[in-house]
Amino acid sequence: MRVVRACVCGSDLWYYRGDSEHGQDAIGHEAIGVVEEIGDDVTTMKPGDLVIVPFAFSDNTCPHCENGVQTACQNGGFFGAGEPGNGCQAEYVRIQQADGTAVVVPAGNYSDEQLASFLALTDVMGTGYHAAVAAGVKPGSTVAVVGDGAVGLAGVLSAKLLGATRIIAMSRHESRQKLATRWGATDIVASRGDDAVAEVMQLTDGIGVDAVLECVGSKDATETAFAIARPGAIVGRVGLPHEAPIDEVGTFFRNVGTRGGPAPVREYLPELLRATLAGEINPGEVFDYETDLDHIDEAYQAMDGRRAIKALIRVSEV
Amino acid sequence: MRVVRACVCGSDLWYYRGDSEHGQDAIGHEAIGVVEEIGDDVTTMKPGDLVIVPFAFSDNTCPHCENGVQTACQNGGFFGAGEPGNGCQAEYVRIQQADGTAVVVPAGNYSDEQLASFLALTDVMGTGYHAAVAAGVKPGSTVAVVGDGAVGLAGVLSAKLLGATRIIAMSRHESRQKLATRWGATDIVASRGDDAVAEVMQLTDGIGVDAVLECVGSKDATETAFAIARPGAIVGRVGLPHEAPIDEVGTFFRNVGTRGGPAPVREYLPELLRATLAGEINPGEVFDYETDLDHIDEAYQAMDGRRAIKALIRVSEV
Repeated sequence: MRVVRACVCGSDLWYYRGDSEHGQDAIGHEAIGVVEEIGDDVTTMKPGDLVIVPFAFSDNTCPHCENGVQTACQNGGFFGAGEPGNGCQAEYVRIQQADGTAVVVPAGNYSDEQLASFLALTDVMGTGYHAAVAAGVKPGSTVAVVGDGAVGLAGVLSAKLLGATRIIAMSRHESRQKLATRWGATDIVASRGDDAVAEVMQLTDGIGVDAVLECVGSKDATETAFAIARPGAIVGRVGLPHEAPIDEVGTFFRNVGTRGGPAPVREYLPELLRATLAGEINPGEVFDYETDLDHIDEAYQAMDGRRAIKALIRVSEV
Repeated sequence: MRVVRACVCGSDLWYYRGDSEHGQDAIGHEAIGVVEEIGDDVTTMKPGDLVIVPFAFSDNTCPHCENGVQTACQNGGFFGAGEPGNGCQAEYVRIQQADGTAVVVPAGNYSDEQLASFLALTDVMGTGYHAAVAAGVKPGSTVAVVGDGAVGLAGVLSAKLLGATRIIAMSRHESRQKLATRWGATDIVASRGDDAVAEVMQLTDGIGVDAVLECVGSKDATETAFAIARPGAIVGRVGLPHEAPIDEVGTFFRNVGTRGGPAPVREYLPELLRATLAGEINPGEVFDYETDLDHIDEAYQAMDGRRAIKALIRVSEV
């Protein structure tokens, strides 16, 4: 695939900062692009097609894929994690398991905004959506979203898409509060810790929320997420847990559950692409920084310094 | 309520053994009986009615009850936990929040077997059912039940009632294996720990099960439950966790969730009573020991010595 747009993920910063080791191949697991050449067995796309590629590849036929958990595919794996040729911050990427992984965008002339939205579907939007699905958000739900990074914001948009009528976004940053509100947040809670819990409980008449989207993974965020869940609610987790234990006794007595993990973006892509093409969602708005491959180091710096929510890399044109 | 049948719960043994403190009022939170007298505000029952009483009382009108979590009722509590007059191993019990708690059995002449089944609905059957509901058991599911106590066995019966087509009962005791099989278990796994996990994985072609019912609460049982859950599955927990941490990172990467806690028996009673009256389930078969109030110490001894799965106390006749 010739890459058209790529972007930088918060988890890419682990390599950038030296917190995680990486091989010599390109980093990056988020890209959309144009099919350049196909393997002999590929049947669902042809050279010239514009395709969206989830951050994980999957055959989409094994029992785990058929069960909707493509991130547990028996023949799957992840882009940009060291396998040769599949890093997405590059001019070209090899898409393993192409039929089971990439989804073709219907032919058309798409704006920069639309391309950015397709790009957001590769990870952050699908991940926020996974949090909302895992948490059991349904029409009429009161939802809280813990975390105002790109994924948390996508969680707000996902809760709205799934019909939540009240969405409490927990955010301390004005620019992120604004996007959260534009995407459907009805309430903003800017405090943290016990204060945030008290505020959410007050907003919900002491009951707690029907569904919580945990989009951070830290100890504080996890504790807050479980504390504001009403009895019977589920905390949808998509933030990779960092020393964030689950209180197995407290959650038991309160009948509070948890689900989630690496998002099966491929499962959600058809619905999210439909909603994007229909103009129901515009997840590309999460990108607030843009550069090209030659200046990608600046994108890392901007995200590392929290000057950007999410950086888009313009690699080539459709 | 004049008590007709009561029984002894595994958790009552904590008091019996001196592991937990208890006040001077009667122990016991499982009973069926005949309404003797009603309070001024009670409208759904009258003296002479046969009623089934869940182990927790609830108003069934507060937001948590309306949300189906009556064990979190804003005006609720538990029988036999020290509140005056509400211990169920007694001749008479005061039923708090009677309208929101007790369910009237349609008038009729019921056999000893049917009365035993009504009694089982007060706790073990509703609790096993909660595990199955929490775990998301649905028609066609492959289910594993960890624990072969009365609740685990009720979990097998519940999985069957909810349409599971394959039910793996993990049990080492022949009498319990037999009841599990009669109630719908298609496979019995008698081993424990790593061997049990390996056996379940082999039975499921290396995939794991769609839903797990954790009906013990110990560290070993919890580890086994999570290990045999397939990606995307939920472990339905009804065993009170005893130093049984949840691996928040491992469950995350495998997209394995958990739900459960104290069962909202009142929520399930209408459906479970319907199924019992229709002869679809016969949960009273779990009682394999019977005595009367004067000899209740023998029932405690039999359960403490694991000579009985569940002991029924015959207190009076309808």
